[in-house]
Amino acid sequence: MPKIVSARVILTSPGRNFTTLKIECDDGTTGVGDATLNGRELAVAAYLSEHVVPCLIGRDAHRIEDMWQFLYKGAYWRRGPVTMTAIAAVDMALWDIKGKLAGLPVYQLLGGAAREGCMVYGHANGTTIEDTIEAALDYQRQGYKAIRLQCGVPGMASTYGVSKDRYFYEPADNDLPTENVWSTAKYMRVVPELFAAAREALGWDVHLLHDIHHRLTPIEAARLGKDLEPYRPFWIEDATPAEDQEAFRLIRQHTTTPLAVGEIFSSVWDCKHLIENRLIDYIRATVLHAGGITHMRQIASLADLHQVRTGCHGATDLSPVTMAAALHLGLAIPNFGIQEYMRHTAETDAVFPHAWRFADGMLHPGDAPGLGVEIDETLAGTFPYARAYLPVNRLEDGTMWSW
Amino acid sequence: MPKIVSARVILTSPGRNFTTLKIECDDGTTGVGDATLNGRELAVAAYLSEHVVPCLIGRDAHRIEDMWQFLYKGAYWRRGPVTMTAIAAVDMALWDIKGKLAGLPVYQLLGGAAREGCMVYGHANGTTIEDTIEAALDYQRQGYKAIRLQCGVPGMASTYGVSKDRYFYEPADNDLPTENVWSTAKYMRVVPELFAAAREALGWDVHLLHDIHHRLTPIEAARLGKDLEPYRPFWIEDATPAEDQEAFRLIRQHTTTPLAVGEIFSSVWDCKHLIENRLIDYIRATVLHAGGITHMRQIASLADLHQVRTGCHGATDLSPVTMAAALHLGLAIPNFGIQEYMRHTAETDAVFPHAWRFADGMLHPGDAPGLGVEIDETLAGTFPYARAYLPVNRLEDGTMWSW
Amino acid sequence: MPKIVSARVILTSPGRNFTTLKIECDDGTTGVGDATLNGRELAVAAYLSEHVVPCLIGRDAHRIEDMWQFLYKGAYWRRGPVTMTAIAAVDMALWDIKGKLAGLPVYQLLGGAAREGCMVYGHANGTTIEDTIEAALDYQRQGYKAIRLQCGVPGMASTYGVSKDRYFYEPADNDLPTENVWSTAKYMRVVPELFAAAREALGWDVHLLHDIHHRLTPIEAARLGKDLEPYRPFWIEDATPAEDQEAFRLIRQHTTTPLAVGEIFSSVWDCKHLIENRLIDYIRATVLHAGGITHMRQIASLADLHQVRTGCHGATDLSPVTMAAALHLGLAIPNFGIQEYMRHTAETDAVFPHAWRFADGMLHPGDAPGLGVEIDETLAGTFPYARAYLPVNRLEDGTMWSW
Amino acid sequence: MPKIVSARVILTSPGRNFTTLKIECDDGTTGVGDATLNGRELAVAAYLSEHVVPCLIGRDAHRIEDMWQFLYKGAYWRRGPVTMTAIAAVDMALWDIKGKLAGLPVYQLLGGAAREGCMVYGHANGTTIEDTIEAALDYQRQGYKAIRLQCGVPGMASTYGVSKDRYFYEPADNDLPTENVWSTAKYMRVVPELFAAAREALGWDVHLLHDIHHRLTPIEAARLGKDLEPYRPFWIEDATPAEDQEAFRLIRQHTTTPLAVGEIFSSVWDCKHLIENRLIDYIRATVLHAGGITHMRQIASLADLHQVRTGCHGATDLSPVTMAAALHLGLAIPNFGIQEYMRHTAETDAVFPHAWRFADGMLHPGDAPGLGVEIDETLAGTFPYARAYLPVNRLEDGTMWSW
Repeated sequence: MPKIVSARVILTSPGRNFTTLKIECDDGTTGVGDATLNGRELAVAAYLSEHVVPCLIGRDAHRIEDMWQFLYKGAYWRRGPVTMTAIAAVDMALWDIKGKLAGLPVYQLLGGAAREGCMVYGHANGTTIEDTIEAALDYQRQGYKAIRLQCGVPGMASTYGVSKDRYFYEPADNDLPTENVWSTAKYMRVVPELFAAAREALGWDVHLLHDIHHRLTPIEAARLGKDLEPYRPFWIEDATPAEDQEAFRLIRQHTTTPLAVGEIFSSVWDCKHLIENRLIDYIRATVLHAGGITHMRQIASLADLHQVRTGCHGATDLSPVTMAAALHLGLAIPNFGIQEYMRHTAETDAVFPHAWRFADGMLHPGDAPGLGVEIDETLAGTFPYARAYLPVNRLEDGTMWSW
Repeated sequence: MPKIVSARVILTSPGRNFTTLKIECDDGTTGVGDATLNGRELAVAAYLSEHVVPCLIGRDAHRIEDMWQFLYKGAYWRRGPVTMTAIAAVDMALWDIKGKLAGLPVYQLLGGAAREGCMVYGHANGTTIEDTIEAALDYQRQGYKAIRLQCGVPGMASTYGVSKDRYFYEPADNDLPTENVWSTAKYMRVVPELFAAAREALGWDVHLLHDIHHRLTPIEAARLGKDLEPYRPFWIEDATPAEDQEAFRLIRQHTTTPLAVGEIFSSVWDCKHLIENRLIDYIRATVLHAGGITHMRQIASLADLHQVRTGCHGATDLSPVTMAAALHLGLAIPNFGIQEYMRHTAETDAVFPHAWRFADGMLHPGDAPGLGVEIDETLAGTFPYARAYLPVNRLEDGTMWSW
Repeated sequence: MPKIVSARVILTSPGRNFTTLKIECDDGTTGVGDATLNGRELAVAAYLSEHVVPCLIGRDAHRIEDMWQFLYKGAYWRRGPVTMTAIAAVDMALWDIKGKLAGLPVYQLLGGAAREGCMVYGHANGTTIEDTIEAALDYQRQGYKAIRLQCGVPGMASTYGVSKDRYFYEPADNDLPTENVWSTAKYMRVVPELFAAAREALGWDVHLLHDIHHRLTPIEAARLGKDLEPYRPFWIEDATPAEDQEAFRLIRQHTTTPLAVGEIFSSVWDCKHLIENRLIDYIRATVLHAGGITHMRQIASLADLHQVRTGCHGATDLSPVTMAAALHLGLAIPNFGIQEYMRHTAETDAVFPHAWRFADGMLHPGDAPGLGVEIDETLAGTFPYARAYLPVNRLEDGTMWSW
Repeated sequence: MPKIVSARVILTSPGRNFTTLKIECDDGTTGVGDATLNGRELAVAAYLSEHVVPCLIGRDAHRIEDMWQFLYKGAYWRRGPVTMTAIAAVDMALWDIKGKLAGLPVYQLLGGAAREGCMVYGHANGTTIEDTIEAALDYQRQGYKAIRLQCGVPGMASTYGVSKDRYFYEPADNDLPTENVWSTAKYMRVVPELFAAAREALGWDVHLLHDIHHRLTPIEAARLGKDLEPYRPFWIEDATPAEDQEAFRLIRQHTTTPLAVGEIFSSVWDCKHLIENRLIDYIRATVLHAGGITHMRQIASLADLHQVRTGCHGATDLSPVTMAAALHLGLAIPNFGIQEYMRHTAETDAVFPHAWRFADGMLHPGDAPGLGVEIDETLAGTFPYARAYLPVNRLEDGTMWSW
């Protein structure tokens, strides 16, 4: 058996913070797992270093399922983003090791390729509708088959998804949380205009997506879903806060616009009701925050039984390790839908050399054994962790709102 | 406004590990909050020190609801034991401050006393049925009105709830997780015998409780519930893992034995379906792991509308600060049910001098302003943190099981 | 303990009737509670004086929850407007006392400010569409962010919400009930025209509301909701009589226009099904008629779990005491939505000097300890109670209808 | 048309308080209606005298339905015990007048006799099981076909339904509410013993009933229902507080013991869900507190569609006028079930001379025109109103509980 002899947490910040777990076996095989929880990095790092790592030493790296259950049930206090991200990091690293030991890319262990590649969507954003359309045209020219559209809202100083830099939007940008201001009424007027202009400029042979980012009540989301129907969006994402899954029934009653949700989910229990009641069309949970490949595969399997497809979160707050894991899984499962894809900075790509590659609007995990991603620890060491927070959001009267 | 000028995390281990948050205002008023997450202490400590504390400085200590929403919504990755325990610590400390500023015990701010004290239950456990009965008789002599019974299972080397020391059972006892072995079949034979013997010895004027500790499937729990009906247990606790709340419907169909669950819940979303569908009778979530007084009050208020009463977790893995918070809330809400009460070591009581007191089978929070608990930091410093884990559990074939 | 030594009911009519309860403690601290039930004032006055006041004397003013339960459960015949208004008066007065004893405004006891102020809406009404628009423009100039629009219906002699005087509409204007005549068909033609004209004149940066005042059947309300969708009303209120909460499901199926209901509700039981099934978006119950701050907080807490926000009734049939209580609660809860605000007469403001203030489209409760409202009993005595009724409504064939 | 020329409220206390409304028409015809709300008499009296009576004068006494709608919809603040009792008083008095004008007993106007008489149940109570059985045997000897059994609970100083005097139990006995103490555990042990003993002594040819009086949670009521099944109770009454009608589903799951509820209901809206979901077997609403003959007939009609029968409240807190109204209605409807019958004092019978009579375990309304009850105002004047309250109930820890 490949015995685990060490496990270390590596913090690095090549443009943004990443937390990485590296496990090493007695035969020298290593595996990497992403453990990044945007804005709460050190809580996961401590969870791993102080409480998980001591339990790993001496164990058989092959027993992934057993280790998963050990960490999940053995935590006693189950679920939640910190816990499940820590478990995910271990799970990814062990799959990486298993692939390397087999001499196979992980997707082969998961059942082999069920398609040629994973369709992705890019983020087109702009301060104005015109800027956004221009950004989208640029993506279209690069071969993207699917584009997410977010634009500034007239009368609001800032909004989610609109960056200063076209490609490298990173909202976790401040040493203390930036406080944004939100107006639902203003927002709801601009989105249908954006989509009308987009269909005019981009035509109908491209998938258009939109992220509401948890900011609408169910009835408001229902309204926006109806308003966007003429433009046939691929989906609207995170229409309303999803702790109470039943909330989506109201949206579902009113609109046939497909619904996607899940980037902040940490386990199947956060989406089981949504899936079983067919209240969504795409499940956006990630390998990283939802317990690793082992658990995400179980979520996808349940979704498959209900004709729900995956549309995994893929912002830059996931390291290239998570992107690899998502692609291996996405290539192998029957009900892959689409993969979010934001490009990392060049520095990040350098710290995490990886086999996965973009071509023709699709990503492919590559055929290196394991996950096909390594971490250049020396380079990583040159980018020290720096505290950063996602913004928070307030209504115009000061009420805390979902960012 | 009382401005927060500092906030610090204090680790101490006077018999077991405790994590405490201490917040100080510009006028010198201080408040304490418990942040202990058994076996994952340093994850919460890091969550607080690295990510929460910087956000507290300079804020108005009076705005508890706003701070709660800030930390909950602003975390972006919501819920889960680490996050919600960190939020709870802040919330408790702010209620402590508010009480001191008002010159009133916290229960007065929560609506005043709705009863004379909070009925508690003690833990009677033993290797054999006879030992357990003897321990229970001892509690009865001390005036306890309610006693939890756990006994060893013939043919099993260990089981949950059975300690070597009668009063100071602390399962988190090892530098690495102890691996226990479990047999449902053996267990289910002994519990009805224990209860039959207990009614014989203790009579009917005492409430008898039992903790299944997540180890049965729903249909097994239904069976045990029926088997115990002749002995009228006050409740059976944690009958089955509760991530899937709907699982309790099956138990409910078969037995009128009251059901209690929730010590590992981290928010109202973990119990909303259980409560709204009346699948349980007692909600055992704690102020500490379920987001503080602010959130626990919301849970209790929802429960009240469905005739569900509280029965909050109160093992020694909660510090005297949480016990105080639980008692202030329990004294004030209309639907208090019962409070678990395990005695801390004398060292713990010395580190956390407190106003709450036991008499006549009840606990009372006392009438000191705020929560009525302080931390003796000098003494705390003499008990350094030492890693400790709860055990894990395996079936006889080695399958990981719920501990 | 602050012991209650006296409690008195004070009737006054400075422009309209108000019933006020004043409780006094042995240390001289006093608290006031509003007990006004429009058109049934003396029933509540008798309920209080003859049946409730004798139970208050000698009790601990701090035990608000206990007193609430005593009056609610102890009434045996629970709920209903008379009972719950009487209980509300006691509850408000006790919170007023508690705040004074703590030296804090009541909102601090409720968790502190969760926003900077409470957005209000004013009543714009007119005999014609043009008059109504003109009245609305006037509100807009005064800084109102939200305006309710009601206009006369061509062919009908009178309708709800249309007064002779622009600001001081008081429908309870007669020694016997005025009998109005109602035509649904005529009404349903004019409202969409009103909203079309309003959007033209007022633009889109103001919230527009409308009150149906219980007069439509569910399918008619569904129709009107759809007809108004292009104008994005903030809400339609009291779409259909709400005793049968399930009736709202039909409206909800057909329209995304937000729904508000509840000004005549007397307890959480009148709205629990509506809230839990997400059949409404705003709950309009008032502190005054729904059991006081204690009970209204429970309603709001339930609503919060279902993304329903408050939009409390705030016509002139609530005294400035209720407005204070509503603002303290509204400032503190996470899910405040909007507050109705009709201005009282100058005489009323003089009888009830109060700390709350209007600025910039918002109301703020002020920072006086307690509720921040007193009653000038000498001045109150100069405005004797005079019987007044709300109108009743009949269809054109004489059938009694909802007014 | 018979024009109403006067309406007066008469208070009298021949053993206990009664409130009576007497309406007089221009032709001298008079009608009486009961307006008694136990413990809140003067609130209803004020509601009637100050707010309802002025609206009656000059109206056509024949238009009962119109008057009902006028008072219900015209109140604006609908439902609740005070309002609906006031409406009931008017409704009874108008039916009395209509019967007299027709020269017919009211039951003839309601469709004529659908049976020969109305089966009643009497109250057998005692401090011990033996006393209770003896009282029940006495009822059996008097020809009663149905008997309610309530006995004292060992270890509790008092309980509901157990009087000092065998026949004239009147719990509203004190100038301030008596505070009782309650223990569910003690209670639940004694009731099955009582029923076992009763079947032994009384045999199986008599209906045995029991009143839980709102004191159990749903799961406790389910347990008691199961425990009583061997003794085939006719019903268990008020098993759990019924504001949340859905609570009864849990009881219903576990037991086939028939369920009765409704004495504190004030309108069909309090029981519609219970009836439509077949959660009960008997609806116990009264003509007096649920809006009069007009509204109670609508409740009974809905119940008939779901095989639910009536079992109207008939304690001594209803005057002989209500008993008459209940009997006229009970004789006429298809789904009469049973009528509660407690005997009034001789003084009460003298103040309210009445045509209804007991024979052979049944009551018959008699054949006098109208309701067949008058009030002897001179005699009534000799028994002045004296404040009296029902007791309240607390758990042993001081928590307010349902009495």
